[in-house]
Amino acid sequence: MDRHQLISLLNQLYNQSIPVEQAFARLKDLPYQDLGHAKIDHHRALRKGYPEVIFCQNKTAQQVVEIATAQLDHGETIYGTRANQEVLDSVKNSIEDVCIDSLAHCFWKKAPNWKKAEKVRGEIIICSAGTADLSVALEAQHTIEIFGHSCTLLSDVGVAGIHRLFSYKEMLSKASVIIAVAGMEGALPSVVAGYVSCPVIGVPTSVGYGSHLNGMVPLFAMLNSCASGLTVVNIDNGFGAACAAVSINSM
Amino acid sequence: MDRHQLISLLNQLYNQSIPVEQAFARLKDLPYQDLGHAKIDHHRALRKGYPEVIFCQNKTAQQVVEIATAQLDHGETIYGTRANQEVLDSVKNSIEDVCIDSLAHCFWKKAPNWKKAEKVRGEIIICSAGTADLSVALEAQHTIEIFGHSCTLLSDVGVAGIHRLFSYKEMLSKASVIIAVAGMEGALPSVVAGYVSCPVIGVPTSVGYGSHLNGMVPLFAMLNSCASGLTVVNIDNGFGAACAAVSINSM
Amino acid sequence: MDRHQLISLLNQLYNQSIPVEQAFARLKDLPYQDLGHAKIDHHRALRKGYPEVIFCQNKTAQQVVEIATAQLDHGETIYGTRANQEVLDSVKNSIEDVCIDSLAHCFWKKAPNWKKAEKVRGEIIICSAGTADLSVALEAQHTIEIFGHSCTLLSDVGVAGIHRLFSYKEMLSKASVIIAVAGMEGALPSVVAGYVSCPVIGVPTSVGYGSHLNGMVPLFAMLNSCASGLTVVNIDNGFGAACAAVSINSM
Amino acid sequence: MDRHQLISLLNQLYNQSIPVEQAFARLKDLPYQDLGHAKIDHHRALRKGYPEVIFCQNKTAQQVVEIATAQLDHGETIYGTRANQEVLDSVKNSIEDVCIDSLAHCFWKKAPNWKKAEKVRGEIIICSAGTADLSVALEAQHTIEIFGHSCTLLSDVGVAGIHRLFSYKEMLSKASVIIAVAGMEGALPSVVAGYVSCPVIGVPTSVGYGSHLNGMVPLFAMLNSCASGLTVVNIDNGFGAACAAVSINSM
Amino acid sequence: MDRHQLISLLNQLYNQSIPVEQAFARLKDLPYQDLGHAKIDHHRALRKGYPEVIFCQNKTAQQVVEIATAQLDHGETIYGTRANQEVLDSVKNSIEDVCIDSLAHCFWKKAPNWKKAEKVRGEIIICSAGTADLSVALEAQHTIEIFGHSCTLLSDVGVAGIHRLFSYKEMLSKASVIIAVAGMEGALPSVVAGYVSCPVIGVPTSVGYGSHLNGMVPLFAMLNSCASGLTVVNIDNGFGAACAAVSINSM
Amino acid sequence: MDRHQLISLLNQLYNQSIPVEQAFARLKDLPYQDLGHAKIDHHRALRKGYPEVIFCQNKTAQQVVEIATAQLDHGETIYGTRANQEVLDSVKNSIEDVCIDSLAHCFWKKAPNWKKAEKVRGEIIICSAGTADLSVALEAQHTIEIFGHSCTLLSDVGVAGIHRLFSYKEMLSKASVIIAVAGMEGALPSVVAGYVSCPVIGVPTSVGYGSHLNGMVPLFAMLNSCASGLTVVNIDNGFGAACAAVSINSM
Amino acid sequence: MDRHQLISLLNQLYNQSIPVEQAFARLKDLPYQDLGHAKIDHHRALRKGYPEVIFCQNKTAQQVVEIATAQLDHGETIYGTRANQEVLDSVKNSIEDVCIDSLAHCFWKKAPNWKKAEKVRGEIIICSAGTADLSVALEAQHTIEIFGHSCTLLSDVGVAGIHRLFSYKEMLSKASVIIAVAGMEGALPSVVAGYVSCPVIGVPTSVGYGSHLNGMVPLFAMLNSCASGLTVVNIDNGFGAACAAVSINSM
Amino acid sequence: MDRHQLISLLNQLYNQSIPVEQAFARLKDLPYQDLGHAKIDHHRALRKGYPEVIFCQNKTAQQVVEIATAQLDHGETIYGTRANQEVLDSVKNSIEDVCIDSLAHCFWKKAPNWKKAEKVRGEIIICSAGTADLSVALEAQHTIEIFGHSCTLLSDVGVAGIHRLFSYKEMLSKASVIIAVAGMEGALPSVVAGYVSCPVIGVPTSVGYGSHLNGMVPLFAMLNSCASGLTVVNIDNGFGAACAAVSINSM
Repeated sequence: MDRHQLISLLNQLYNQSIPVEQAFARLKDLPYQDLGHAKIDHHRALRKGYPEVIFCQNKTAQQVVEIATAQLDHGETIYGTRANQEVLDSVKNSIEDVCIDSLAHCFWKKAPNWKKAEKVRGEIIICSAGTADLSVALEAQHTIEIFGHSCTLLSDVGVAGIHRLFSYKEMLSKASVIIAVAGMEGALPSVVAGYVSCPVIGVPTSVGYGSHLNGMVPLFAMLNSCASGLTVVNIDNGFGAACAAVSINSM
Repeated sequence: MDRHQLISLLNQLYNQSIPVEQAFARLKDLPYQDLGHAKIDHHRALRKGYPEVIFCQNKTAQQVVEIATAQLDHGETIYGTRANQEVLDSVKNSIEDVCIDSLAHCFWKKAPNWKKAEKVRGEIIICSAGTADLSVALEAQHTIEIFGHSCTLLSDVGVAGIHRLFSYKEMLSKASVIIAVAGMEGALPSVVAGYVSCPVIGVPTSVGYGSHLNGMVPLFAMLNSCASGLTVVNIDNGFGAACAAVSINSM
Repeated sequence: MDRHQLISLLNQLYNQSIPVEQAFARLKDLPYQDLGHAKIDHHRALRKGYPEVIFCQNKTAQQVVEIATAQLDHGETIYGTRANQEVLDSVKNSIEDVCIDSLAHCFWKKAPNWKKAEKVRGEIIICSAGTADLSVALEAQHTIEIFGHSCTLLSDVGVAGIHRLFSYKEMLSKASVIIAVAGMEGALPSVVAGYVSCPVIGVPTSVGYGSHLNGMVPLFAMLNSCASGLTVVNIDNGFGAACAAVSINSM
Repeated sequence: MDRHQLISLLNQLYNQSIPVEQAFARLKDLPYQDLGHAKIDHHRALRKGYPEVIFCQNKTAQQVVEIATAQLDHGETIYGTRANQEVLDSVKNSIEDVCIDSLAHCFWKKAPNWKKAEKVRGEIIICSAGTADLSVALEAQHTIEIFGHSCTLLSDVGVAGIHRLFSYKEMLSKASVIIAVAGMEGALPSVVAGYVSCPVIGVPTSVGYGSHLNGMVPLFAMLNSCASGLTVVNIDNGFGAACAAVSINSM
Repeated sequence: MDRHQLISLLNQLYNQSIPVEQAFARLKDLPYQDLGHAKIDHHRALRKGYPEVIFCQNKTAQQVVEIATAQLDHGETIYGTRANQEVLDSVKNSIEDVCIDSLAHCFWKKAPNWKKAEKVRGEIIICSAGTADLSVALEAQHTIEIFGHSCTLLSDVGVAGIHRLFSYKEMLSKASVIIAVAGMEGALPSVVAGYVSCPVIGVPTSVGYGSHLNGMVPLFAMLNSCASGLTVVNIDNGFGAACAAVSINSM
Repeated sequence: MDRHQLISLLNQLYNQSIPVEQAFARLKDLPYQDLGHAKIDHHRALRKGYPEVIFCQNKTAQQVVEIATAQLDHGETIYGTRANQEVLDSVKNSIEDVCIDSLAHCFWKKAPNWKKAEKVRGEIIICSAGTADLSVALEAQHTIEIFGHSCTLLSDVGVAGIHRLFSYKEMLSKASVIIAVAGMEGALPSVVAGYVSCPVIGVPTSVGYGSHLNGMVPLFAMLNSCASGLTVVNIDNGFGAACAAVSINSM
Repeated sequence: MDRHQLISLLNQLYNQSIPVEQAFARLKDLPYQDLGHAKIDHHRALRKGYPEVIFCQNKTAQQVVEIATAQLDHGETIYGTRANQEVLDSVKNSIEDVCIDSLAHCFWKKAPNWKKAEKVRGEIIICSAGTADLSVALEAQHTIEIFGHSCTLLSDVGVAGIHRLFSYKEMLSKASVIIAVAGMEGALPSVVAGYVSCPVIGVPTSVGYGSHLNGMVPLFAMLNSCASGLTVVNIDNGFGAACAAVSINSM
Repeated sequence: MDRHQLISLLNQLYNQSIPVEQAFARLKDLPYQDLGHAKIDHHRALRKGYPEVIFCQNKTAQQVVEIATAQLDHGETIYGTRANQEVLDSVKNSIEDVCIDSLAHCFWKKAPNWKKAEKVRGEIIICSAGTADLSVALEAQHTIEIFGHSCTLLSDVGVAGIHRLFSYKEMLSKASVIIAVAGMEGALPSVVAGYVSCPVIGVPTSVGYGSHLNGMVPLFAMLNSCASGLTVVNIDNGFGAACAAVSINSM
């Protein structure tokens, strides 16, 4: 039951073309799901402030192209994450002028009416510990920019060269939210969160070897940090960190 | 070297009471740590926006009382977390008019000059899945209030009675940041984060049994949530979630 | 908005005491949660076919007594699980004629209008591998009986004495659903499920030592069983197995 | 000793061609295994209500084709699960009119005398959380249908879009048993089991990344669900869930 | 159906008081379990070569005393393992002349007709790495002796003082089977098995701390030994190792 | 210092060509390692009763061929385990008349003087739960036969078809040692060890999926078996089980 | 065979009182273990440079006192680690003038001839991250001092207050070896090892909660550090770190 | 601000061309990071005593070649570790006279001014347990030699042939530091550390199968060793062990 159906029903009642019992019968089981479905969808778009994103990891190249094409037909921005090379190639061949970043495993094409977010708190900064963590940091960066927020990426500022991080002290102190990406022992977010007052989001990466447990070690290290104000997302989840950062940075 | 020592040195140089070489010798090795120590301490107080907190878990009752007494002597607000009953009893006997919440394992006494934070974004809401998660939720609530922010606690709104949560839909949609506390399968933060646009911080608790792994299951469930905008803190870390929420809620 | 409020609103509209727009405004945001809340609560009682149960594990003795007393005042059956001795003692002192099984960590008092379930498929059988698994098996047994179903408990029929189990072959083959409780290597449910055609629910227990991992070994063994038709619940979760068995056994 | 040998022995005794002692000597050690072997095999077919299934995972293409061909020669329904593409290709080339579902990793060919199960309780419903969980859901669906039961598959009704699930509320409330398939944080079965009165079987899938632990996270989340009446099978075990559902749905 | 019922039936047939069909009908479903039950029990006693043992870990003091008393009444040897001090005290107070070893958590009283095993291969040797592993080694020693085999215990011969082990070289080379007990890094069984030709059974113990994982580390170390001929039992399972050693040492 | 050098030294002393001091100086630091090295090597061959085996897993095809060729040149039996197809192909091309079993990942060529072991206790039986466990069972079988012992392999006698195992009851009861190979839930060794009096060696396999943990589940299930007399080797370690069985079976 | 026996044998040979064959027979099986035993014992004392230490964790108070008293009777230094309060009380009551540090769980009494180590490389520094890590750091400190080396303990210099650590920059840069003790996320050793050129030994502690895994998180973080030159010991193993530091610091 | 800028500023002040306030303003915010950056870089080179190393694991062939070429252009020694074959081929094609060890996954080219380290304590010895551990041992060996220290590699001296290790007793006793590399059960470092007085660094390797957990078993075994003076690095981290050994061996 959508808005028009509901108004029609109410009009019928107002006009006494149907008795109260009949209206009650229909309304008491009001299929709020259907109404809710549409409403929630609009709500979702409104409140989240960003378009639907295609998570490509468990989809075939054909499926991804079909979804993206359908979105394009509706004039929407398309943005795909965790796309392997086969998917990226298919997207490139099927969609004109699509942007692709193979290192970040992302593709995107902004809608004609795409524009920067208007009410933002400030600048989002992404710190990446090692060059090997870069693909996760880039996923975060692209996500933030597609969602219309501003973002600066500081690469290779891990704790082994802690002075490099400190040389950005002023920039860090002015950030509205910081994403800190690190593999290995995952100490970067702790150091950053001990240094600034804004919210810090830690992203552990699967970069490492041996007892690294595919990223569980930096994940647990971040969760056990003694620096307050630090929250954490899943291993390699640059996208999730970006969503949280955009949410925090929105007014 | 503090401000006065530095100015004194510069004056000596200006007055040519010391040669350039001597000034250079002292300044080239400028012990930024000492200067930094003091500066960072002030910075810390300024930027974090909240007083030093006594983490009581690995401290004796005597140690906790000594620290709290010293803080009181300096006119500071005292706030202790993760205090067992023995510590709470000692604190109660030693510090006049101290407030104690045994369920939350916290105690506090606000400084005479304590006041509410002035520039905040809005209301922080804490959702607690079960009554057993309450002590963690209360730790978060007390922390937020000591730090001068406003906070509403919705208890017993777990996914088993998902309609109870939905009855607070409007309140949730107006929150500036939400803390969602859950043990067992830890599904509450996912449902909340799929429902609102503000940042959501998940706090897994050690409430459960069997294959619950002392809270690892809700922790991992939250990290693997398909709802975007959700970040996570350590198991039972109501304090950490509160710090992050306060940081997000500050302007 | 409950039934009466809704009918009142519809009558107002029918009588044209309010315009369509006003009715639409109230109904378009129909707080289905409130309606739903009540409805779901009734639904819950109706569909689950069993009363609210007090899970005592993370509750104080005082809390448990308060809840149980409130339920008694409403003429409901009370049933508490995972109660430690302190809780059981409080319950015993506070509630007249309450039944207590310390080994099963349960207490109960049936409501005056309690009666056996009417439409059941047949007999539920509980097989318990060792005497040490008995407390979990008893929790399942009491739950099934409180919920009004019939139940037979075969104790000490583990695979080390596999002939004992086989001596109940005929009884097993006539069961409508079987709960198989086992600790150690957890092989009993596999053997049972390879033997009968009815649904089998495995309950791993925390009985064991060394590399038993507090019940994870029998849990995983059951999950990896090559016998089809076997499903599993959490370690020591006799209550959950009973709920599933009652659900299966209901017509 | 088979049926004919036993009758022959009894005839000899009846005709007094052998004394009681000799018959006793042979019968007291009655090799029940041999007799039992055949009997149990028939029992198995009768009670389980479904044909032998070829689990292809650790078999070569040649082995699978040989088994399937032998079954066909005996006029049996063939049904293979967990077949990789190489196996499916071999089956396709070797067996005329075989049905293949590559996404579900299954193949089947119904026997000429195949027919629907006659005494069933009702409809089995499969809910699948994400599109990536579809291959597991399809394995369950094919299994249920080969075993002669009716089945409806609701795809993409995960908790991130919880209203989609709720739009099937009526259908769910009429199901005789529900299979809920979910990867990621595995919350779907909890929500479903909190919603219906029929038995719910959770199937965790290996869909996810990072700290997902190859499906251990949704597995543990389901085992720790606070919704009663939920039981669980192994990760990706759509076949096992189908067997249990068929068992529950049989009269 | 027991022996007498079977002979009666065969006599009826011999006397033609029943037809072949009726005898066949009763015999084809011969309840082998009942016959088997008794038979297997005797088999068990005969083949295992040792009495029933009371595993006390999950039994109350009262239960243990009841079982032991019943065994005594039947003139059997009693032997209890994993008894805590409360159980040992109850046993001491209830059973005259019972032998107790608190360090080994064992008690025993040999039956009047107890005697040494007659056909054994040779001497069983137990090597214990550290003094802290002694209680496990003693459980093995008592078990072997109760079962009638000879046994020598070499204590404190861990790899840290590898020369102490080597000083028993000749004794080790003459053993018929060796049990090697070790906690910490669990290297002793590897070194022993690389040194002798007889079977070696490794028993990991829960002695250790930190990343010792309650005995999982020595367990895994033994399982991954490069020395061939080594097999392993559960952590702290001195009893199980003794059973296996007795089985190997029997002719 | 080998035998000849030692005799030469002793002769020099006997002939007084060197003084006692000089002999003492050389002998007090007697490089027992060198003597020991040779001696231990002989000891090793003598006591273990089987030739050096080439563990191919971490060796290149070229390395394996070189080692095997060197052994052949010394007239030794060659036997390689865990050889992948590339290694097997190289061996086949390089060594005339070599025997290869691809399924078991083994190759061998008996020395001209190879002969059966003379003093054995009896027959070794290998039980394999499923067809997928066959490659591990075959590795054990080949190893036993190369080492000169007799061996029978019972394949596909898992607990899902427990009557099949029971049909070999007599054969099992006469075995001198049994190797039980099982993946999935690993219940076979428990059932076998509860059935026979001889030593039973459990071999968990990596056959399974989902929460099978690559064989950890059957490994732990076997370690936690309530059947006494069962010992365990590493996952897929058919070779190790064979070595232990040969050691037990030797007189 | 000791030195005297060997010389006697050689004299007999020199004097031709025994033939070469007889000397060879005795010497070819030279029981190097006995000779070696004594030699190795002396070697051990000489090379390790420190007395035997009593590891009290799995010993009774009585056992500890007996060992310590025996050492005192031989004029040795006594030093006990991991002693609980009961052990410390017994030691205090039994041994005059013994030194006890309850926080470090240690006791000691230096031998009359105890003296500082003579040839050391320099100063050993212990950095302790938090006050809760102090007991582990103190165990290391006492061990180093008992072993005769010099040691400075810097407490509460964790990465949350990284400037405090940096204020000791000069002292750290002059250390000959550094022990860095940390619980929580275990980042301190990484930062220290990135800062100095001397060897750094990381000691993870079991201080933490939630997903801290009893010290596994800082252990793994240290093992995965990107700072080179860092090695690690077991959780809470201050003693082991001290032994390694003393070994490195010895000339 | 570098040295020249600082001197210039101080000269301006001395010459009174700027007032004290202006100098103070610039100096109070002295960007110690920039100064520190340069200083720390020099410190790093000086104190670590070895060149920058290219960790190739997460770098493309192109990236590695670019970095190496840049280093060559500055006249530096290049040294790359963990390079796969593709990287090694690219390096070989791009850099003249580069040395490559495919087994060790390393390449290097010494700078013209490369020379041996001058002040070293003695010889570093690497013991490798099995031939399969060789690639890790070689990485350590190359690293040590590039860093200008002397090193001897003893291969295939595992505890299964413990006499081989003992034959190097004298060499081991003279080492200044020993690296012990072992996979499987990881017992070698324990035995070595129980044998010598110098520091021993254990390197667990990922060589093994089954319950080996990709090297976690030898890692944990080494951490739980009862031999004192042993420290450990990450699995397969030959490079890290070499850095620590060089640090220890430097005067």
